[in-house]
Amino acid sequence: MSKKVAVIMGSDSDFPVVKKAVEELKAYGVPFECHVMSAHRTPELASKFAASAKDNGFGVIICAAGMAAHLAGVVAGHTTLPVIGIPCKGANFDGMDALLATVQMPSGIPVATVAVDGAKNAAILAIQMLALSDDTLAEKLLKAKQDMIDGVIAKDKKLQEAVNAL
Amino acid sequence: MSKKVAVIMGSDSDFPVVKKAVEELKAYGVPFECHVMSAHRTPELASKFAASAKDNGFGVIICAAGMAAHLAGVVAGHTTLPVIGIPCKGANFDGMDALLATVQMPSGIPVATVAVDGAKNAAILAIQMLALSDDTLAEKLLKAKQDMIDGVIAKDKKLQEAVNAL
Amino acid sequence: MSKKVAVIMGSDSDFPVVKKAVEELKAYGVPFECHVMSAHRTPELASKFAASAKDNGFGVIICAAGMAAHLAGVVAGHTTLPVIGIPCKGANFDGMDALLATVQMPSGIPVATVAVDGAKNAAILAIQMLALSDDTLAEKLLKAKQDMIDGVIAKDKKLQEAVNAL
Amino acid sequence: MSKKVAVIMGSDSDFPVVKKAVEELKAYGVPFECHVMSAHRTPELASKFAASAKDNGFGVIICAAGMAAHLAGVVAGHTTLPVIGIPCKGANFDGMDALLATVQMPSGIPVATVAVDGAKNAAILAIQMLALSDDTLAEKLLKAKQDMIDGVIAKDKKLQEAVNAL
Amino acid sequence: MSKKVAVIMGSDSDFPVVKKAVEELKAYGVPFECHVMSAHRTPELASKFAASAKDNGFGVIICAAGMAAHLAGVVAGHTTLPVIGIPCKGANFDGMDALLATVQMPSGIPVATVAVDGAKNAAILAIQMLALSDDTLAEKLLKAKQDMIDGVIAKDKKLQEAVNAL
Amino acid sequence: MSKKVAVIMGSDSDFPVVKKAVEELKAYGVPFECHVMSAHRTPELASKFAASAKDNGFGVIICAAGMAAHLAGVVAGHTTLPVIGIPCKGANFDGMDALLATVQMPSGIPVATVAVDGAKNAAILAIQMLALSDDTLAEKLLKAKQDMIDGVIAKDKKLQEAVNAL
Amino acid sequence: MSKKVAVIMGSDSDFPVVKKAVEELKAYGVPFECHVMSAHRTPELASKFAASAKDNGFGVIICAAGMAAHLAGVVAGHTTLPVIGIPCKGANFDGMDALLATVQMPSGIPVATVAVDGAKNAAILAIQMLALSDDTLAEKLLKAKQDMIDGVIAKDKKLQEAVNAL
Amino acid sequence: MSKKVAVIMGSDSDFPVVKKAVEELKAYGVPFECHVMSAHRTPELASKFAASAKDNGFGVIICAAGMAAHLAGVVAGHTTLPVIGIPCKGANFDGMDALLATVQMPSGIPVATVAVDGAKNAAILAIQMLALSDDTLAEKLLKAKQDMIDGVIAKDKKLQEAVNAL
Repeated sequence: MSKKVAVIMGSDSDFPVVKKAVEELKAYGVPFECHVMSAHRTPELASKFAASAKDNGFGVIICAAGMAAHLAGVVAGHTTLPVIGIPCKGANFDGMDALLATVQMPSGIPVATVAVDGAKNAAILAIQMLALSDDTLAEKLLKAKQDMIDGVIAKDKKLQEAVNAL
Repeated sequence: MSKKVAVIMGSDSDFPVVKKAVEELKAYGVPFECHVMSAHRTPELASKFAASAKDNGFGVIICAAGMAAHLAGVVAGHTTLPVIGIPCKGANFDGMDALLATVQMPSGIPVATVAVDGAKNAAILAIQMLALSDDTLAEKLLKAKQDMIDGVIAKDKKLQEAVNAL
Repeated sequence: MSKKVAVIMGSDSDFPVVKKAVEELKAYGVPFECHVMSAHRTPELASKFAASAKDNGFGVIICAAGMAAHLAGVVAGHTTLPVIGIPCKGANFDGMDALLATVQMPSGIPVATVAVDGAKNAAILAIQMLALSDDTLAEKLLKAKQDMIDGVIAKDKKLQEAVNAL
Repeated sequence: MSKKVAVIMGSDSDFPVVKKAVEELKAYGVPFECHVMSAHRTPELASKFAASAKDNGFGVIICAAGMAAHLAGVVAGHTTLPVIGIPCKGANFDGMDALLATVQMPSGIPVATVAVDGAKNAAILAIQMLALSDDTLAEKLLKAKQDMIDGVIAKDKKLQEAVNAL
Repeated sequence: MSKKVAVIMGSDSDFPVVKKAVEELKAYGVPFECHVMSAHRTPELASKFAASAKDNGFGVIICAAGMAAHLAGVVAGHTTLPVIGIPCKGANFDGMDALLATVQMPSGIPVATVAVDGAKNAAILAIQMLALSDDTLAEKLLKAKQDMIDGVIAKDKKLQEAVNAL
Repeated sequence: MSKKVAVIMGSDSDFPVVKKAVEELKAYGVPFECHVMSAHRTPELASKFAASAKDNGFGVIICAAGMAAHLAGVVAGHTTLPVIGIPCKGANFDGMDALLATVQMPSGIPVATVAVDGAKNAAILAIQMLALSDDTLAEKLLKAKQDMIDGVIAKDKKLQEAVNAL
Repeated sequence: MSKKVAVIMGSDSDFPVVKKAVEELKAYGVPFECHVMSAHRTPELASKFAASAKDNGFGVIICAAGMAAHLAGVVAGHTTLPVIGIPCKGANFDGMDALLATVQMPSGIPVATVAVDGAKNAAILAIQMLALSDDTLAEKLLKAKQDMIDGVIAKDKKLQEAVNAL
Repeated sequence: MSKKVAVIMGSDSDFPVVKKAVEELKAYGVPFECHVMSAHRTPELASKFAASAKDNGFGVIICAAGMAAHLAGVVAGHTTLPVIGIPCKGANFDGMDALLATVQMPSGIPVATVAVDGAKNAAILAIQMLALSDDTLAEKLLKAKQDMIDGVIAKDKKLQEAVNAL
């Protein structure tokens, strides 16, 4: 069976964003765990989780955090698994603080950063990584890509009506 | 043997940055190909390369580009392999234009973005992905992490002399 | 008859912005087509459309997209027709991500960028281009400019009442 | 013969940037005039030039200015010809001030904005506009696009040596 | 009697902001005129107004505009009277576009810029200028400063209740 | 005789920028005093200077400061004279910190802000204010404006040679 | 007994933010005073308060202000007590103006800056300073840290239900 | 004797900036330790150091880091001592990434942030905290403040010569 994906968020207030990642993982049938853990409030828990993640059957760790978003970086410091960072929009700066705090990692400790609040893409990216050694997942990704194409074509057709109605 | 990593840059002027990724891949013994291909100047080549990358034995595609950095996004549009984007610093804005053009991908098409000019981290991230199904690579990553720790400790010792000399 | 204008948007959610361009083209009697096409989700369609646009009777291509707005750049890569980019405001950064991703094109592949969400101006700009070889359109542009002047003068008169009422 | 392109800059200190536009126009054999005119220092001259440009045989006006770059906007206010704006990098902000002052035009008065210091692209864009009714120019644009492709392919070949030398 | 203050705005949609300037001028009994005039839509009117303002009895010109806010700069280009610029918040960027387009004037043509939407301060600044040769206005400014101090002290007293109520 | 202009800078390291203001005031024959005074390091001196400036024969106070540039705001808090702020470029952010700290004044206490490092314009603005009641200065300003026009025209002529030489 | 904490805000409109600092100080039983005082509107009061704060039994001064937030800097100029600055979000720029105006202090006069609107953290920071010589406060801080950990763990448990319900 | 100050930097490349803090602490005779420790490369060491700092006789911890500067936040997560953060300017963004990653801490875990590269102020701030219970340090701070005033007055005198020489 596929390795598990961990989905960690720095605060439960991030869950409305993060749940799109969870839903995507469910849709693909990828096993996962989801936790609230803070790089600042529960640093011991976050460190231990990260340090033991590989041994505990995880393949990828997705971290979502806002403001001075240190969670992904701290987790990446404790593991050699790929870590995906979701910068969350906080009360100010439209998430620019979280984006820079997530993506501008020093040499040696990468964090694979997606768009601000880009939880769905974080899940897809995790699945793409797991699909490198899982042909079933790879097939599902190809199908989803085709569905996406069909969806755009359908929307284009529908648009013609809206344009004609102007 | 491990899948190959593709390292693509939008302009040969990006090579001084990108070569750190190449060096890292070489150091880990990961097979790779390195190309100049532009999302704007040679869109056909870039599209074909991306669309056939999986069949051609690639596992991860690293894309480096500056300014309105579309290369990673365009490549990601043509493949289900994980795509890593390196935003390169151009003549203006310290790479903020490339960062936003790389990371702010729409839902469905993720790009795993690293820091501006973060070529070495892009390579490490690619290796982390491949290591999910390659224990030798995983071992090397662990060893590199320990070397990094030893390096910092050595620098800390050396710092004491500099401090005492003040 | 005048060449056609293509109005392409990366997502149907951009239509509330883009329809101002469509309305303006209608008001001037310029023939146009309007489509949803994505640089990331339907790259093949977008590329083919762009590559064949000139042969299909188009003179100008207007592209509207948000976030990492690659649509205009990708289209410009496949055609020698003038391409106009409308950066659309997404969920974050007030459209700065789309603006930089649209305007900061590398040398050789220009995109004529208008203001964030500036769909009406995109249409006017397209009409100005077509009017270079279409005197009827040129006359209409002159008339619209005079109407605009009259409109401001009327507003200035009305303002005097508002000021007196303070 | 083709209509003329006007290339105006707000200060002669912008000429090192602007001359790339002039060189491109020369290379294509497009007739042009080049002037220093300031929206702030010589507003009368700039206004008169813009207002009479169409009658004087111009088809497109390229305006380059830095800082609070008003030149393109002011010129666009006095003509219905397409106006292309080149935001020039000044002493601060990497040209962000000029970019916003050029591109964020109000509804009714578009300025086709290119990248900061994007003089060559401004010229290509002007040529694309003129080529709408000039097949010779259109042919030259197609050829230049092919040359660009060949150039990238050549650079890709050369890159292989650099990579092998690492 | 005191010289007049001109209050010009680029669009009547700016009036909700600008009216605070008008109210302040009224409160001080300073004669003024208020107009809608656009640097882009009615450039001739704006230029003529500015060029003749000194002869028409104006002492200071306040200009309010948003987006690529050229009004203050264009007016300043046509007069030697002091020009005050109010950058207005538009649909995007919180007025940063208007701030940079107003304040970053080239050497030789200053615009006295106040805060984004700072209409009241623009009026006070104009009054301070006129008060240089009008002792009655100078007295009123001193009185207003003292009133402001008394107002803060009163608010401080009231705050104590709010704090005690916590 | 004209009122004096005070030119204050927060640090003597700002003098290379500020001296352009001093030179301009000298060229116009406007009496002035120039001081180093800090809102943070010598707040008592700065406050006293501002509070007594009007009685000491000053008409306008120019304040130059970088980083968290509080000097102009603090001076404006202690006087009803018009205060002009020059945001100086410090070690970071190209002067954006100083610009925002200077221009974003709260209601009631305006600071007439010029461009980053815009010392010459600060002096011209001060002279424009004094010229409201000094016809000789007003004449000099008009002459300077004409000289500026002649200068641009001369540069335009010279440009033709540079263009022809390409 | 512990030294007092002063909580000063530039405007009573900042109180909804600032009251979280007051509540935190109350919860810890730290004596405090809370005042409205403006660096611009009541500079004399603010200066006197700061200059006499140490003699009046204060240990730390917290200053909250928005826009061109000078309050903390001005207070720090008049005292050697540690000064904590809370940049408050104003009408524009999400508090970036206040953040830069608070944190970018020149050498010699530090302001301990917390996050935009970070009033609670300002209070905790003040308590941490006082706890350096107050073991009871130090104990309370440790307990609060443990409570925070317990709170996150509880939220993590609760999250499992939300995830299962998807 | 006074408690010790810890000065930690994320990389030895930060030492040219950080040494100004060390020099200031030495000048005041405050005992200190200085270390290289990374939140990402040596997270265990940094955590242990922070968690035991209070028991090891430290009173304040100064943390300097660049890019996604997590060091101060991670240290603050493991201690109740006041933590001071110095955002260091990295290769891009003039330290804005480090500033936001340092100052935008979530509620509960403050970091007292100083200016970008503001190492000297970090030391003064630490000394101000220790001086709350150390009258000798408090005296030294007062003396330094007076020296600073005398220094500015001396510079003002010297400036007069420079001005006269113009």
